[in-house]
Amino acid sequence: MPVNLLAPDPASLHPVPGVRWGVTMAGVRKANRRDLSVIALDAGASVAGVFTQNRFCAAPVQLCREHLASGTEVRALLINTGNANAGTGADGLARARATCEALAGLMGLQAKQVLPFSTGVIMESLPVDRITAGLPAALAALDANAWGLAAEGIMTTDTIPKAASRQVQIAGKTVTVTGISKGAGMIRPNMATMLGFMATDAVIAPALLQSLVTQAADQSFNRITIDGDTSTNDSFVLIATQQAGHAAIESLDSADGQILREAVFAVARELAQAIVRDGEGATKFIAVKVSGGRDEAECKLAAYAIAHSPLVKTAFFASDPNLGRILAAVGYAGIADLDQALIDLHLDDVHVVHQGGRRAEYREEDGQRVMKQSEITVHVNLNRGPASTTVWTCDLSHDYVTINADYRS
Amino acid sequence: MPVNLLAPDPASLHPVPGVRWGVTMAGVRKANRRDLSVIALDAGASVAGVFTQNRFCAAPVQLCREHLASGTEVRALLINTGNANAGTGADGLARARATCEALAGLMGLQAKQVLPFSTGVIMESLPVDRITAGLPAALAALDANAWGLAAEGIMTTDTIPKAASRQVQIAGKTVTVTGISKGAGMIRPNMATMLGFMATDAVIAPALLQSLVTQAADQSFNRITIDGDTSTNDSFVLIATQQAGHAAIESLDSADGQILREAVFAVARELAQAIVRDGEGATKFIAVKVSGGRDEAECKLAAYAIAHSPLVKTAFFASDPNLGRILAAVGYAGIADLDQALIDLHLDDVHVVHQGGRRAEYREEDGQRVMKQSEITVHVNLNRGPASTTVWTCDLSHDYVTINADYRS
Repeated sequence: MPVNLLAPDPASLHPVPGVRWGVTMAGVRKANRRDLSVIALDAGASVAGVFTQNRFCAAPVQLCREHLASGTEVRALLINTGNANAGTGADGLARARATCEALAGLMGLQAKQVLPFSTGVIMESLPVDRITAGLPAALAALDANAWGLAAEGIMTTDTIPKAASRQVQIAGKTVTVTGISKGAGMIRPNMATMLGFMATDAVIAPALLQSLVTQAADQSFNRITIDGDTSTNDSFVLIATQQAGHAAIESLDSADGQILREAVFAVARELAQAIVRDGEGATKFIAVKVSGGRDEAECKLAAYAIAHSPLVKTAFFASDPNLGRILAAVGYAGIADLDQALIDLHLDDVHVVHQGGRRAEYREEDGQRVMKQSEITVHVNLNRGPASTTVWTCDLSHDYVTINADYRS
Repeated sequence: MPVNLLAPDPASLHPVPGVRWGVTMAGVRKANRRDLSVIALDAGASVAGVFTQNRFCAAPVQLCREHLASGTEVRALLINTGNANAGTGADGLARARATCEALAGLMGLQAKQVLPFSTGVIMESLPVDRITAGLPAALAALDANAWGLAAEGIMTTDTIPKAASRQVQIAGKTVTVTGISKGAGMIRPNMATMLGFMATDAVIAPALLQSLVTQAADQSFNRITIDGDTSTNDSFVLIATQQAGHAAIESLDSADGQILREAVFAVARELAQAIVRDGEGATKFIAVKVSGGRDEAECKLAAYAIAHSPLVKTAFFASDPNLGRILAAVGYAGIADLDQALIDLHLDDVHVVHQGGRRAEYREEDGQRVMKQSEITVHVNLNRGPASTTVWTCDLSHDYVTINADYRS
């Protein structure tokens, strides 16, 4: 059961002029599920992306990087579930290339104008034939109003599709930002998550788009973790179709740039948090805030140590205020000269630890009350500097084990 | 159910001349369990230890370091379960000091001649009164043949006591090495585990003992992980009572030094592996070997990434050869310039991956056969250098979640 997350109302997902989705069933791994999606872009769109830092990055990620680096205008994205095409060596690269060529052929494009994305089981051969056989149906289905279908079409172990949409006014024009994401396990993105697609019709200098997507990832997908396993296929793409009709944004710090940035961040954050809310087996949504660090890096070390600790995560699952486990995680986070005698710990509004020790006034009932909530903020103050950060995670339940022990069967 | 681990036969545990254990029930947390142990050492023994690197180290760990640094001869160790006395601030330190003073008073020692050890729940006040009330019974029970009782007396979530013993001949004299350990969760020792106690009657230059215990930890307790959570209380102590009657070992590289070192390593490794075999919820014992690294550090990064991955661990639990998860873990291990195209993966004798991709000859049935075993070796060859390492871990099962969701109840 996802934590306070509902399937998006398709009517709430504003189409983005210049972007059409075609979603179909190709039987990549299982029959009768939407597993193949195509995004067709009007000419003139700009595309930027961030990709997994996993050294075992999947063949499609390698091709995305290659095609984006070529500087050729991207006109289509091709996404399959059911097979990650990772750990597949040179053969996997050739297979990914073959699917790009097939779609390019049908659309009258060059292969490098297609960006491929795959998600699913690692280390199995991509079924090129089934994918190419499904392409005509995907193209026939192209529709600007298919964001909801697309959110469903990229799911794997997700229990619920994830989408978000905003409209803002820029220089008197309505500008749309709409996105979808997927992911529920192998989630500890490091640059992006597997997978996020966002589009806007904003008019923005193409050179700014990479900066915007990187900043957005850093404020959203790079702040979440479910199991600490960085995927081989993480990809987060931002498309700007440039069709909204306002004067081009030439700086993200301009008034218009800030409006767009905030809208992009808001959608990205909602999509990223949706992944945590639908984390495999999740019963709780947990924000881990670490403040008082000397720099953000050490705040992140502590926040991720807490967010990855199986002991902390099982305590949340049990609603057990066994909060010493949080202190232990801070202690082994790798902050070499940390002084435990400075640490404060709050659980929502409950002040649990002061100067490294349990407060005399802390009552277990108060911790218990917060632990029973479905949304909880853990706040650790290192009290040694001005920096802070927040990451979002979920608990570790029996269902996580069940899902991952059964994933392939 | 521990993995291929039986309770030690008390008769197999050779006493170490100069070492006596007294074990009793003090009701530290629960009634009717052995939870308080004292080691009394004859005069002339040397003691060295390694302790947790967790910055939130427990009060007793802080006192151990202080007392060892004082250079005063250690004559007693005091160990309680049921309460870790960690995350307890200045009050915890005062309470640990009070227990040392109480034992010292009964034994006619100075407080700094006592090393304290605590294990159990974090962030609760140590019940000094119950511990001091139990000391006379522990002292009355002192016995050189109580290693088996002591192994039981230091257990927390362990399901089985852990002990090992060896005898070797050094210069015509029989030398004994005997040890006990405990631990089943919050296990990712970084210098030592919580807790290991070993003693030998070997005659060894006291200056060598710290080096020997550090090397032994590095070959044993520093190579295991259950959940990646480094405890606040990890402590591993090696005692040399100097009573075996042979000429003193002045170098660990001498013939006699090597005999002793191998015996110490063998006992330490057996104790460390016993902790993994009894890992919370463990159903499989897994050795993760990484070879072909440029240095041992990068081999460790990869080995621990595999050993900590919840996805890898649940696949082992399910006996599912979903081995791409192992590649993904190697990929995010943090080896910045790793070339995936060089990687080989073996599962026991089955060659699964070559040059970063699944071998055409690999058959899923072969992977399945190995995954069903209770003991499995994962071997990743990075093929870029001469270094290698091995760490030991266990799988992640439903019982891990159950145990850690229920630990305090």
